[in-house]
Amino acid sequence: MVSGSSLPKGVGMDWSKRAECSEISLNVDDFGDQELMELSNFIVVHGAGSFGHFQASKSGVHKGGLERPLVKAGFVATRISVTKLNLEIVRALARESLPAIGMSPFSCGWSTCQRNFGSANLSTVTKALDSGFVPVLHGDAVLDEAQGCTILSGDVIIRYLAEHLKPDYVVFLTDVLGVYDRPPTEPGAVLLREIAVNEDGSWSVLKPRLKDSSRQVEITVAAHDTTGGMMTKISEAAMIAKLGIDVYIATTNHSVRALRGELRGDVIPDDWLGTLVRFSR
Amino acid sequence: MVSGSSLPKGVGMDWSKRAECSEISLNVDDFGDQELMELSNFIVVHGAGSFGHFQASKSGVHKGGLERPLVKAGFVATRISVTKLNLEIVRALARESLPAIGMSPFSCGWSTCQRNFGSANLSTVTKALDSGFVPVLHGDAVLDEAQGCTILSGDVIIRYLAEHLKPDYVVFLTDVLGVYDRPPTEPGAVLLREIAVNEDGSWSVLKPRLKDSSRQVEITVAAHDTTGGMMTKISEAAMIAKLGIDVYIATTNHSVRALRGELRGDVIPDDWLGTLVRFSR
Repeated sequence: MVSGSSLPKGVGMDWSKRAECSEISLNVDDFGDQELMELSNFIVVHGAGSFGHFQASKSGVHKGGLERPLVKAGFVATRISVTKLNLEIVRALARESLPAIGMSPFSCGWSTCQRNFGSANLSTVTKALDSGFVPVLHGDAVLDEAQGCTILSGDVIIRYLAEHLKPDYVVFLTDVLGVYDRPPTEPGAVLLREIAVNEDGSWSVLKPRLKDSSRQVEITVAAHDTTGGMMTKISEAAMIAKLGIDVYIATTNHSVRALRGELRGDVIPDDWLGTLVRFSR
Repeated sequence: MVSGSSLPKGVGMDWSKRAECSEISLNVDDFGDQELMELSNFIVVHGAGSFGHFQASKSGVHKGGLERPLVKAGFVATRISVTKLNLEIVRALARESLPAIGMSPFSCGWSTCQRNFGSANLSTVTKALDSGFVPVLHGDAVLDEAQGCTILSGDVIIRYLAEHLKPDYVVFLTDVLGVYDRPPTEPGAVLLREIAVNEDGSWSVLKPRLKDSSRQVEITVAAHDTTGGMMTKISEAAMIAKLGIDVYIATTNHSVRALRGELRGDVIPDDWLGTLVRFSR
C-alpha cells in the first residue's frame, strides 16, 4: 500500500555484518546533518509467498485448533518463516535508504474472530508513520478468538489499513502484469486494464471491451495458497476501490509510475500495463 | 524470565529450509495427536549483545533525536540487527520443540518517556502465554515521547514483566558464573553467591562473607554497552527481588537447576555456582 510520491536514495540503513566481510562498514560522516529526503506516509504490506504458505497449509493453521500439536507447531513454524521473509524485505528496503521498520501483526496484538479481522489497534503503525518510518507489515499467523488461531493474509491487512488510514491510492505488486480474464498461462488470456466496482460490490471490466461479454472471468486459486490467491486479491481490491481509493495491480516494473502518483488522472496511459480497479461513480 | 519447571522435548517447530538441502522436511504424522508436554507460563527476554549495541551506540539511538539522519538510520539498523538475533533465538528454541513466538517491543507498541519505561500494554504477551506459547522478547529501539527514540533494554523489560506478571522466579543468563566483587578477569575475584536486597533498595552480600567488608564491590560497564552492562543487571535484579521474586544470575549450565525450580528452598546448595539475589525480609 502506497500513499506518496518519489522514493529517496542515499545512505544505507542495514548495518548488519555481510557474509563476505567480518567488519561492519559504517562511516558516520556519510550521514552529515543533511535532511533525509522527505517521504510521504507510506506503508508496505507483503504476503508470505513461498515463506509460510507451506507451513500453514501442511498444518492447517488457517483452520485453527491450537490444542493440536501439529497446529501449534505449524503456527510457530509459520511465524518463523514469515518473520524471515519480513526481515529480508526490511533489509532490502533499508539498503536503499528507506527507513523501513518490520512490524509483525501478531506482535501488534492483532487477532481475528471466526477468521474475520474485525478490529486492530493501528496506533503503533500510525506512530511509526508519524516518526517518519516505513512500516513493513506482513501476512501472519495470529490468534483467533473463536477457533484459536488462523492466518491473517496481507491482502486483508491492506484492506483494513485502507479503510482506516485512507491512503491516496493502493498498489498491489504481482508477478504477472495484472488481472487476466483467465489464467495468464492459457493461450489468448487478456489483461484486464480497468475494472469498475459498483456500489453493491459487483465489478465489471471497463477496458478492454471483451468480445464475449457473457464469458465468465475465470479466477484460479493455487492449491497451496491458504489465503485465496488472485480471487482474494480482486475482492479485497474491489472493497478498497469501493472506499473511493484507486487500486493498481501491476508488476514491480509497471508499479513505479503508479507508486509515483503518475496515474492519478481519469485516463490510464496506453503504455502502462496493469489493472486499475476503481469505484464506478 | 522463567516461571515453571521442566522443559519439553519432542518434535521440531522450525520448518524453514536448511541451507544444506532444498526440501523442507516435515512428517505430519510425527505430530500425531499426542499432547505436547505441558509447559508452565514461561517468557524469554534477551538483550542485543553484539547484535545492536554497535548500531545503537555508533548512531546514538539511546540519546534520541530521530530528526537526525544518522539517528534515524541507526534506529532502522538497530531494529534489523536485534530482529535477526531474535529470529535466531526463536529458531533455536523451536528446534528444541519449544513453541517460541518472537515478539518485538516496538511492534508491541511499547514506548518510553524520557527514557523511562512507564507503561506497556502486556495483553499481547499474556494472550500468547494463555495460548501456550513462549513469548521471546528482546531489547529494542523504541519511540520515546520526549526525545523521539531510545533503546529499551532487555533488563528493563524483565523488570517490567516481573512487576506486572509476578512470576515465581527470574533467571538471568550470563557468560560468567554470576556477579563478582570486581571484574571477573581480575585475580582473586570472588563470586558473590547470595545478595540480600533491603527495603530501601540497597543491597549487601550475604554469602560468601567478604574478608574486607569495607571494600567496595566494583562494577564495570563496557564502553560499547548502551544499556549499562552488569550494573543495570544488578540494579534491575535488586528491584525485582524487592517485589519478593527471587532472581538467579548464572551461566546456561548452572541455570538449568534454577529454571527447573530446584533452588526454591531457603538454602542454596553449595555445588550450585551462581548468584541469588533475594529480598531480605
